[in-house]
Amino acid sequence: MTARGKLPGEFELIARYFAPLAADAPGALGLRDDAFAFTPPTGMDLVLTTDAATAGLHFLRSDPPDLVARKLLRVNLSDLAGKGARPLGYLMTTAFDDAIDEAWIAKFAEGLAQDQAEYGIALWGGDTTATPGPLALTATLIGSVPAGRALRRGGARPGDRILVTGTIGDGIFGLAAHRGELTDLAAPARHALAQRYVLPQPRMALGAALAEQGVAHAGMDISDGLAGDLAHICEASGCGATVEIASVPVSDPVAELVAENPALIASALTGGDDYELLLAVPPSNVAAAREAARKAGTPLADIGAFTHTPAVQFVDRDGQPLALPSLGFTHF
Amino acid sequence: MTARGKLPGEFELIARYFAPLAADAPGALGLRDDAFAFTPPTGMDLVLTTDAATAGLHFLRSDPPDLVARKLLRVNLSDLAGKGARPLGYLMTTAFDDAIDEAWIAKFAEGLAQDQAEYGIALWGGDTTATPGPLALTATLIGSVPAGRALRRGGARPGDRILVTGTIGDGIFGLAAHRGELTDLAAPARHALAQRYVLPQPRMALGAALAEQGVAHAGMDISDGLAGDLAHICEASGCGATVEIASVPVSDPVAELVAENPALIASALTGGDDYELLLAVPPSNVAAAREAARKAGTPLADIGAFTHTPAVQFVDRDGQPLALPSLGFTHF
Repeated sequence: MTARGKLPGEFELIARYFAPLAADAPGALGLRDDAFAFTPPTGMDLVLTTDAATAGLHFLRSDPPDLVARKLLRVNLSDLAGKGARPLGYLMTTAFDDAIDEAWIAKFAEGLAQDQAEYGIALWGGDTTATPGPLALTATLIGSVPAGRALRRGGARPGDRILVTGTIGDGIFGLAAHRGELTDLAAPARHALAQRYVLPQPRMALGAALAEQGVAHAGMDISDGLAGDLAHICEASGCGATVEIASVPVSDPVAELVAENPALIASALTGGDDYELLLAVPPSNVAAAREAARKAGTPLADIGAFTHTPAVQFVDRDGQPLALPSLGFTHF
Repeated sequence: MTARGKLPGEFELIARYFAPLAADAPGALGLRDDAFAFTPPTGMDLVLTTDAATAGLHFLRSDPPDLVARKLLRVNLSDLAGKGARPLGYLMTTAFDDAIDEAWIAKFAEGLAQDQAEYGIALWGGDTTATPGPLALTATLIGSVPAGRALRRGGARPGDRILVTGTIGDGIFGLAAHRGELTDLAAPARHALAQRYVLPQPRMALGAALAEQGVAHAGMDISDGLAGDLAHICEASGCGATVEIASVPVSDPVAELVAENPALIASALTGGDDYELLLAVPPSNVAAAREAARKAGTPLADIGAFTHTPAVQFVDRDGQPLALPSLGFTHF
């Protein structure tokens, strides 16, 4: 084993910082095996998702390492929430750049431990390497959902109501605030927005409840922007959608920004990183969905309806459609 | 959706090159969903493993893209083979650098398709991003093994025979050959070695057969070098091991290199990237292991025994232990 730069060797790093994170997962054998073996829960389907996070692209290299860790998990947890799955465990790959020191890794592992406790998951396995390029992380999350109950993109039907959790647009304005922009806003508002970007709140409890109760026809998490992700559901379901812009829930800081510059509503509707739920719920189930949301303590808003006409429209109070510059965003 | 550099957007890339790779996996829904949902096979344990591959570190940026793809899968498949699991599917993250063009991705997808067919797996999901740094790839492989039968590192007992498949040391000398070194060797020998590095042959059939038949006490794939991985088994099993160096199988090119410079045997025993199986088999089961190897068409050699004394020793024909400069290697 050779040492490189400031860091202990790969096996030593794993033993010191990552093995403790696998202590609650017997199949991980303290990460001393090559793979994780486990007996799947009976009567359940498994749900798997993976996301990559690269410094400078998905997070800032100067972000606190514990928050980088927690966002890595939460972005993936939100995918599980969008399918109605409850999380079980995760695998992770880390490619540390030359400037990473042991204190960074210790803090990073602290963040993982914190969210493992919060979401009841354990580290199941991974791969620890180095990179000459930017710090690169990936996580693969594994969850379970009662067999056949996973929420899909393709199940929306014309007439279904469009429901969303929380507030829309905080992701994109949160990124701006996190970068030190939006200086017209008061400091507490800027801080609140930045926090929403840095530490998303995946809607685990409500997603799982809706799947278990069979309340929604379709669902996903909003990560590429409300407009783009709604288009994804419509495309997969073979229908359209009309959203009443006035019904789209926004946070106070975003309401303030849009009041000053109404054109910014388009950014709120198309910006990424919201990590809320987007649901297609038949009118007869809306009351049940609201009750599940109440129990989960999650705000839920009815913003429009799925339609026969294939177009995705955002209409103002006069029924006039808003021209959106682009639907959603990608990492290219 | 915005276009960047030479490449189409993320969703277009996925639709064009990666969705076809998910065609045989109904749960992947053509990669148009956020996560993969599936019903695990009954009576089976699932085995999960993940590995990261970064250009310049795990492969050369100039390597043919189809071979990069196939090695990414095979390195992970070898982990499954080491646990005795049969592969089911995989998730993948890709972070493409600025110089990647569509032709590269098309060829990369071709390599994935080729090994998907060879190993009976499908793409279940993933994440496609960009990076300003070196091209970075990860794969998470999922396999299954009859419940409770997964091979572990921790089961070796004193008296068990140490069995290895194939030949040892081709990985490290194959890397040298691939880099254009070892010019004393004839071209065909250099080419054969380089191929072993570029395109490992994971021992899927034998690994699965040994697990299903319960023939081995412990097992893993040799990826960090025979000496280091043997030390891993000993550490997890609480025993030692003595290997007769003369019994360690080497390929003709490696035999030639060692004949010219006997000190090179240490490199063969400690070098990584062999992707062979390392097994602990009780003497009473060696015949069954050999029969399974014969059926799988996989060479299998008996190279020594696990011992009560905790040391890992490699001894010559006179019983003298070889001093190894280091045990295994890491990516630091």
